[in-house]
Amino acid sequence: MHTKHDNPDFAEAAINVRYAETDKMGIVYYANYLVWFEVGRVAWCKAKGFRYADMESNDGLFLVVAESACRYKAPARFEDDIVVKTALAKATDRVIRYQYEIRKKTGWELLATGETAHIVTDSNFRPSRLPDHYRQYFSLPPRRVVPAKN
Amino acid sequence: MHTKHDNPDFAEAAINVRYAETDKMGIVYYANYLVWFEVGRVAWCKAKGFRYADMESNDGLFLVVAESACRYKAPARFEDDIVVKTALAKATDRVIRYQYEIRKKTGWELLATGETAHIVTDSNFRPSRLPDHYRQYFSLPPRRVVPAKN
Amino acid sequence: MHTKHDNPDFAEAAINVRYAETDKMGIVYYANYLVWFEVGRVAWCKAKGFRYADMESNDGLFLVVAESACRYKAPARFEDDIVVKTALAKATDRVIRYQYEIRKKTGWELLATGETAHIVTDSNFRPSRLPDHYRQYFSLPPRRVVPAKN
Amino acid sequence: MHTKHDNPDFAEAAINVRYAETDKMGIVYYANYLVWFEVGRVAWCKAKGFRYADMESNDGLFLVVAESACRYKAPARFEDDIVVKTALAKATDRVIRYQYEIRKKTGWELLATGETAHIVTDSNFRPSRLPDHYRQYFSLPPRRVVPAKN
Repeated sequence: MHTKHDNPDFAEAAINVRYAETDKMGIVYYANYLVWFEVGRVAWCKAKGFRYADMESNDGLFLVVAESACRYKAPARFEDDIVVKTALAKATDRVIRYQYEIRKKTGWELLATGETAHIVTDSNFRPSRLPDHYRQYFSLPPRRVVPAKN
Repeated sequence: MHTKHDNPDFAEAAINVRYAETDKMGIVYYANYLVWFEVGRVAWCKAKGFRYADMESNDGLFLVVAESACRYKAPARFEDDIVVKTALAKATDRVIRYQYEIRKKTGWELLATGETAHIVTDSNFRPSRLPDHYRQYFSLPPRRVVPAKN
Repeated sequence: MHTKHDNPDFAEAAINVRYAETDKMGIVYYANYLVWFEVGRVAWCKAKGFRYADMESNDGLFLVVAESACRYKAPARFEDDIVVKTALAKATDRVIRYQYEIRKKTGWELLATGETAHIVTDSNFRPSRLPDHYRQYFSLPPRRVVPAKN
Repeated sequence: MHTKHDNPDFAEAAINVRYAETDKMGIVYYANYLVWFEVGRVAWCKAKGFRYADMESNDGLFLVVAESACRYKAPARFEDDIVVKTALAKATDRVIRYQYEIRKKTGWELLATGETAHIVTDSNFRPSRLPDHYRQYFSLPPRRVVPAKN
């Protein structure tokens, strides 16, 4: 028996496997799991209360991928209902790490696990910092404000 | 017997079919032919003497796709050597039309034919015109210069 | 004002634009509309009462794409909610034609229209025919049964 | 100065970045590096003297991906000439590990490094073993033949 919502920090995204995502082996091509991780991150942002698209277009902030890793446990097939579970693994205001589980909706079989690391940058890919109003979403405490000397 | 270079206006690009491009039917997924058309357009630009990337980054010009069509004659398979033949079908300084043939390198079998139409725009997707120095590439005569009244 | 369900034969599929589907122009890459058409066909099959995956795995039937066409009216962007509307355009037991509309969910703006044609084949890509129990789904009348001579 | 061929076991594959491979950040989408790794593996097989496609179709052998990892160092852009370097990292007749370097052809800048692990399976994804005639390609010694008792 599984508990679907064991970790409240995991956001879930539903995916139905597309024909385009399969390859001649008859199963989902391995690079597409990284696309699903991205779908997971977007769902995670929504669950936290903001749109990733807004972060880019309103704040000029980008989360450039620095690392990705995936372990493939069991194949996914055309028309399978898939759940992507995404959680924050670790965050500073400069580097964000996510972890993922890919599961089959029916039976909750674990198909893959993975991680990604992202550098916070400006639109020119220069390292930057999460602005204050985003810190809460990434479980970062408010920045200590140094009182101005009067 | 075929004549490989019957039309001198056709530029040729070589592609080796990737595993990622196949689907569970064991053949190349149909949307990937449009990706190959794009590879063909890039080769066409190079054959004419300019880089499509420069057109975008230096001139702020975009060829936004307005129409695409493809007829699939025979399947392409993993590791097949493919040739994409690309020719200008029709051009004004506002609308560019390309035509394509996808052939198997060995045997020259016709796998697909297609067309795309593109609108010349600026970086905000507003209709624009090809600048004068690009007109020659698209077989457009130099613009008639109205002599300034003195 | 629009009427969302003007044609009862249009099945609808919901898509949220993925980052992977965008290109450096900042909008959805043109080949991905054909992937969305496929998502639309799967939704159409479900709406009719069968799974496309079952047609392949249980009946050994494939709908190989013979033609595709798309007209791009307005760009789709990252995180846009998209609706793919799919209807049967014409069908025999050998050739199936679909038509599509891609719309933005908010405002119902028309982003693209398209068509595809499919040949019914067996698993070796030899032309075949829809078996009798699929004819109803494609609005084909039951085959006239010639009474056996006694 | 770099030495292009420091490790003779690295096979090289040339790639020209496709528009389709970029995303709205203006650089190559991170999942596509895994597609390039696959292009690298195909080139590695060719360099060793066999076609990966033949291994699947003639021998019914599949190298199912079990793990992938990638570290992204610098972005790749549209029309960049890229070199994928692929080497065997470790092999048994049951598990194959590859390592990769992605470099820019001009300047030889390191864009990414990565690894993949593959399980040797039959066409039903059951664990299998490399047949004897493939052992040499993977730097495996010939199997010790137990002399038949006379």
